[in-house]
Amino acid sequence: MHDFDAHFMQEAISVAIENLEKGIGGPFGAVVVKDGEIIARCGNSVTSTNDPTAHAEVNAIREACKVLGHFQLDDCTIYSSCEPCPMCLGAIYWARPKALYFAAGRDDAALAGFDDSYIYNQIPLPPFNRALPTFQILQQEGLKPFQKWQAIEAKIEY
Amino acid sequence: MHDFDAHFMQEAISVAIENLEKGIGGPFGAVVVKDGEIIARCGNSVTSTNDPTAHAEVNAIREACKVLGHFQLDDCTIYSSCEPCPMCLGAIYWARPKALYFAAGRDDAALAGFDDSYIYNQIPLPPFNRALPTFQILQQEGLKPFQKWQAIEAKIEY
Repeated sequence: MHDFDAHFMQEAISVAIENLEKGIGGPFGAVVVKDGEIIARCGNSVTSTNDPTAHAEVNAIREACKVLGHFQLDDCTIYSSCEPCPMCLGAIYWARPKALYFAAGRDDAALAGFDDSYIYNQIPLPPFNRALPTFQILQQEGLKPFQKWQAIEAKIEY
Repeated sequence: MHDFDAHFMQEAISVAIENLEKGIGGPFGAVVVKDGEIIARCGNSVTSTNDPTAHAEVNAIREACKVLGHFQLDDCTIYSSCEPCPMCLGAIYWARPKALYFAAGRDDAALAGFDDSYIYNQIPLPPFNRALPTFQILQQEGLKPFQKWQAIEAKIEY
């Protein structure tokens, strides 16, 4: 661990504390760093914005991408006050930063009442074996958007 | 499958097609239905909004929560033109709808160049065995936001 890693993580933890003290949302914070500078610094805002996707990491990724004007976090590092939930981890994979640091682990979060492990256990299951009732219908119709997509030459891949 | 399920899925597929024809983003669409009415209807807008989290399902969840003024999709059903990626599936679990329908499967998406299975394979791995370089630092400091959270009585849980 370098000094700057500890510095940026302390910043993520400070955001988490500010966030709960201001009543913005849950006790989580994340910062995105590029070239030694913080380009996004966000807390969880699920309850104040009525947005279940507004976890600290998702908010920070969205903010950092706005700053960069790109949908990928090339050469960026994400520091999160807590191990990301599966939604946030998926978002991190789509954003493609170069590294991820976290402080508290998922077991620490579970002790505080945030049980991400339920979702971690659901995701690898076959879709129709999950607790969420899930059905596949109109599969052939569902291929049409892909067929049209593949026929377009000037498309932006992501 | 009821007629209305097919109707709502056709709508999700229509959004996916409109979405790519207008150049808004990838060939995906989702609708959220409550009490027989569509309350949100969104496509993927990753490339047009520079937001890697702006998948159709995440956009539709955010929009539907805005309509309902709540961070949960009580008694709602989500229809997606394609099987959700792990990020979207995580978002769906946090939003807590009553059911999920999808048309194309993840293998169909992979054939069109959208390989969500890579992320599906990464998520269940122990954090330090993933392809994304991941490190845990300052774990004890990371407990502080949780300690402060637990001391607050009038907090909104989610």
